[in-house]
Amino acid sequence: MPLIVHSQPPLPRRVTIIGVGLIGGSFALAMRRAVPDICVTGVDRDEINLATARHLGVLDQVVQDVASAVAEAELVLLAVPVRQLAAVLSQVWATLPAGAVVTDVGSTKASVWQAAQATMGASLARFVPGHPIAGAEQSGVRAARADLFQGCSVVLTPTSVCDEQARGVVQQCWEACGAKVELMSVQRHDAIFGVVSHLPHLLSFALVYDIATRVDAASFFRFAAGGFRDFTRIAASNPEMWRDISLANRTVLLSEIERYREQLDLLTELLQQEDESGLESFFKVARQARRNWNDTQ
Amino acid sequence: MPLIVHSQPPLPRRVTIIGVGLIGGSFALAMRRAVPDICVTGVDRDEINLATARHLGVLDQVVQDVASAVAEAELVLLAVPVRQLAAVLSQVWATLPAGAVVTDVGSTKASVWQAAQATMGASLARFVPGHPIAGAEQSGVRAARADLFQGCSVVLTPTSVCDEQARGVVQQCWEACGAKVELMSVQRHDAIFGVVSHLPHLLSFALVYDIATRVDAASFFRFAAGGFRDFTRIAASNPEMWRDISLANRTVLLSEIERYREQLDLLTELLQQEDESGLESFFKVARQARRNWNDTQ
Repeated sequence: MPLIVHSQPPLPRRVTIIGVGLIGGSFALAMRRAVPDICVTGVDRDEINLATARHLGVLDQVVQDVASAVAEAELVLLAVPVRQLAAVLSQVWATLPAGAVVTDVGSTKASVWQAAQATMGASLARFVPGHPIAGAEQSGVRAARADLFQGCSVVLTPTSVCDEQARGVVQQCWEACGAKVELMSVQRHDAIFGVVSHLPHLLSFALVYDIATRVDAASFFRFAAGGFRDFTRIAASNPEMWRDISLANRTVLLSEIERYREQLDLLTELLQQEDESGLESFFKVARQARRNWNDTQ
Repeated sequence: MPLIVHSQPPLPRRVTIIGVGLIGGSFALAMRRAVPDICVTGVDRDEINLATARHLGVLDQVVQDVASAVAEAELVLLAVPVRQLAAVLSQVWATLPAGAVVTDVGSTKASVWQAAQATMGASLARFVPGHPIAGAEQSGVRAARADLFQGCSVVLTPTSVCDEQARGVVQQCWEACGAKVELMSVQRHDAIFGVVSHLPHLLSFALVYDIATRVDAASFFRFAAGGFRDFTRIAASNPEMWRDISLANRTVLLSEIERYREQLDLLTELLQQEDESGLESFFKVARQARRNWNDTQ
């Protein structure tokens, strides 16, 4: 009796990347490893970046406009800032070939999905929102690496209108890049990343802002040391990017700031009452949870 | 005409260290480099730690009790947790030789000064409160290094009753260890470190506590990545130590938490009003200040 093998469809061979930075460039390099005869087309507003990407062998061809870049694509990866996504999506769908699949890499997903609903028309079923949990100190295509996604998680948030095959193609590509794919709803994604990523960024910005706006800021910064360094590393993040993420996920952030305030209320109460065991157990819970988390990394 | 040289008094040759951990042990090693014929005596509640210190050549002799350890000292360094300081100080003064100088390494200074006032009697003038801004991932005498204080700041907070010569001896010792000495008032010290060190620790503990106490904590921690790692590294700090620091500096912390809340109020308002330029400039101020700080490190 013949063995029935459920073989996966082949990986796409014509890939278009819109926004060829760290993430877009690394995706191109990783896909090249997986698909030797791939043809990767790139679009980017920054011509120098685009020329560099070509020079580094990240791209096979560069195209000036989105419409012609996607005209022959099997897979389109949108790796532009969240804020530009709506504008780019509205250009993509007009020339998108039937059957081509579109995905993105934005840090927030509800806003992306809204933009897709508003612009993609009949192509909407072939848009699979995604978010690779990867990054690096550097940005730009020069920092791109074929192994950036090795062992990383990539969250996909397909909705009920999403074509199952389209989801499969995107998942297969990320797995070919070495990533573990996790599926969740758009809302769940934004709730989780609002807490573990967006909120700490705001809290870190807030501490540095708090110190920086004092009359005698310099005498504070002068004595800041290792703990401050770690806590505020993310306060050096890109302000435009975090403005966009904050606004895109503002509903979650507003409720999470409120919830965080309640922890500050509790700490305030413990301090006011000089509650030794209360403070110690608060810190112990946090330390144990942080250590447990560390052990899983 | 003879040249008049204002020579400094020689560094102390009989040094007693109470609490031979990372800081106490590193001070001993650094002083050994500076004073070849030094005799370092150590006291510690942990006998294994004490034997290790002896074995590693950190100490010349170990003594079981504080009273005999200080009986022949020229300099006594108290490197015990802030909370134990009052008890240790009350043992120190009884057998302290006339002219011997005492200093400490506690992270808060008002509470230490109060304890000294309450216990040291006539020896109070020879107590010079201090705080080396140094630390490391590890603790305990095994982590001690002769160069731990090289280039570090050490804050001394001598008060008006403080003997000028005693202050000079302590300053000279820290400088011999490679540190830069800064003088400031007790109140100023606690105000500054409340902001740049104690507050970020509480904020970091609070975020991890916030996540850890959710029903679905695991699904949040699962997606935490680099930003979370940096922000929460200090939430793995010692709970007993931070309970003590928080209580010792509670007045400053209560007002700083209040002030930090005002930054959260501002962020909340900017998010509610979807104030793009307001958010961007908030983040820009923080990023610029964080970068400027980084450049000075």
